[in-house]
Amino acid sequence: MSGTEQTPEFKRSPSHFADRITADGSSGWPVEPGRYRLVVSRACPWANRSLIVRRLLGLEPAIPVAVTDPIQDERSWRFTLDPDGRDPVLGIRFLSEAYLARDPGYTGGVSVPAIVDVPSGRLVTNDYQRITLDLATEWRRLHRPGAPDLYPEALRAEIDAVNADVFRDVNNGVYVAGFARRQDTYERAYTRLFDRLDVLSDRLAHRRYLVGDTITEADVRLFVTLVRFDAVYHGHFKCNRSKLSEMPVLWAYARDLFQTPGFGDTIDFDHIKRHYYAVHDQINPTRIVPVGPDLSGWTTPHGREALGGRPFGDGTPPPPPPAGEAVPPPA
Amino acid sequence: MSGTEQTPEFKRSPSHFADRITADGSSGWPVEPGRYRLVVSRACPWANRSLIVRRLLGLEPAIPVAVTDPIQDERSWRFTLDPDGRDPVLGIRFLSEAYLARDPGYTGGVSVPAIVDVPSGRLVTNDYQRITLDLATEWRRLHRPGAPDLYPEALRAEIDAVNADVFRDVNNGVYVAGFARRQDTYERAYTRLFDRLDVLSDRLAHRRYLVGDTITEADVRLFVTLVRFDAVYHGHFKCNRSKLSEMPVLWAYARDLFQTPGFGDTIDFDHIKRHYYAVHDQINPTRIVPVGPDLSGWTTPHGREALGGRPFGDGTPPPPPPAGEAVPPPA
Repeated sequence: MSGTEQTPEFKRSPSHFADRITADGSSGWPVEPGRYRLVVSRACPWANRSLIVRRLLGLEPAIPVAVTDPIQDERSWRFTLDPDGRDPVLGIRFLSEAYLARDPGYTGGVSVPAIVDVPSGRLVTNDYQRITLDLATEWRRLHRPGAPDLYPEALRAEIDAVNADVFRDVNNGVYVAGFARRQDTYERAYTRLFDRLDVLSDRLAHRRYLVGDTITEADVRLFVTLVRFDAVYHGHFKCNRSKLSEMPVLWAYARDLFQTPGFGDTIDFDHIKRHYYAVHDQINPTRIVPVGPDLSGWTTPHGREALGGRPFGDGTPPPPPPAGEAVPPPA
Repeated sequence: MSGTEQTPEFKRSPSHFADRITADGSSGWPVEPGRYRLVVSRACPWANRSLIVRRLLGLEPAIPVAVTDPIQDERSWRFTLDPDGRDPVLGIRFLSEAYLARDPGYTGGVSVPAIVDVPSGRLVTNDYQRITLDLATEWRRLHRPGAPDLYPEALRAEIDAVNADVFRDVNNGVYVAGFARRQDTYERAYTRLFDRLDVLSDRLAHRRYLVGDTITEADVRLFVTLVRFDAVYHGHFKCNRSKLSEMPVLWAYARDLFQTPGFGDTIDFDHIKRHYYAVHDQINPTRIVPVGPDLSGWTTPHGREALGGRPFGDGTPPPPPPAGEAVPPPA
């Protein structure tokens, strides 16, 4: 997402391009291996969802990824990490070029995750709420053997309900707190956030995952916020009742997922910290990036196996990331 | 202190008015009960030193206190907490008036702690490094019965050496980090700060106090920074390798002092948080004050008694603060 709007209470823009890529092609965009390119920032929690789901489902060969620079300039997300500053497949320097290829008159925000049709160079969708659900369902024939079912039909109502609460109070709640321009707006978001985290902590005290006994989309969505909590939201967004590492159940839950193949191996704390602290100059005008926190706790034992649960259900964990996609270890 | 200078590395201004109040009056300012007024902000760590020392030594009747608003405006420290916005004894609205009474041409910064001569309304000293040492030594005949010796002659060299390291890397170090305008300036201060805290933690692992086996000036000076650490310096100044509450030795040491009469009863977390977050708009332009952190840990058992030590040496703890000086409990 781009996410720096300035309203009394921060409102996240709805995704503008919400086409779907479908198994039967009825949407005009058929599932096809290698046809589409997933554009992400490793900094962005909304894009992080799609990176995790892609890894868990083994969709790396089917939908290759382009990783943007964590720091947007006034032209938004850039391919400045690539040779000559161009995505080697799409040949573009800015993600906005794919938006304009789709709609030459487009003047709205440019957000990740974005899926681009490689042959035409046109944006297909930036609908971050839908992309992961479609990867889990519409893309099923391209999943790896042993891929988990992240959105099982029998549990969808419960997953959707958990996701709605988590989105409002947690995923987006940290942004409402952090982008607040008024003390009361901030305090309301802070209260809702920690009240919700307390409810989630109670829920996870005696069960390993949020819904059912396996990893689902609900866990992916909560994880992407928790993994950024101490590195960014605690200080930068003033979500500071306590650190995640001071909330024992959620901290163990987050470490369990972090240490599960497909989760922690998508996380680049360097990209995460540099993005937030450098881009939001309205809340960090010096753009100085904190050296802390100490991140070594993420790989410590979590003890959650004792709660049972079957992380991948009848499936298996994904193999390590493909060559070229591994995140460098922190300096 | 006022402390918002903008240089590549933050440099604390030397105190401009460094007259001393002496037992023998040779300085022109004799120790005299009720003659002087100590002006403080409860937000300010430099002023906090003098509040603690005054409490420990029972100097409250001898040198009454004036408490400023925690939020300075462009005229600096204000008596807006008092009826009609005037200090009831000095009759002034701004501390700067006492500075100008001393030096009509003065154009420098206005800082606390400041000691003002009540009869003339003139500032005597704003020398925060000297004020507490003189309260401990020159004011001795006005100390309460049972007052501790905070600056014992036999330990002065060691206290001075510890204080010099603590000042450079901790007391002032957090400001150098927080006011840095460049990443490298910040990172150097961050490294020096946490390296020093590690050394201090080792020193305090097996001894209850920094120097000798009783509370001294050295403990007062370290405490005023530690007590602000999680509430302000961790987030606002980006001193975030860890919270104080995650450094077990220093956290227990700080709680021990906090729970010692004369320390915690001078601390106003509301003033502390509102001051830093509202005044430093160059690092917090929204001026939003975080709701956190949870401060309830400050009153939990610390277990430091097991290390021995005699907090007040051959003396006794001070009684509770006099009427009118108690800090309201946090909301």
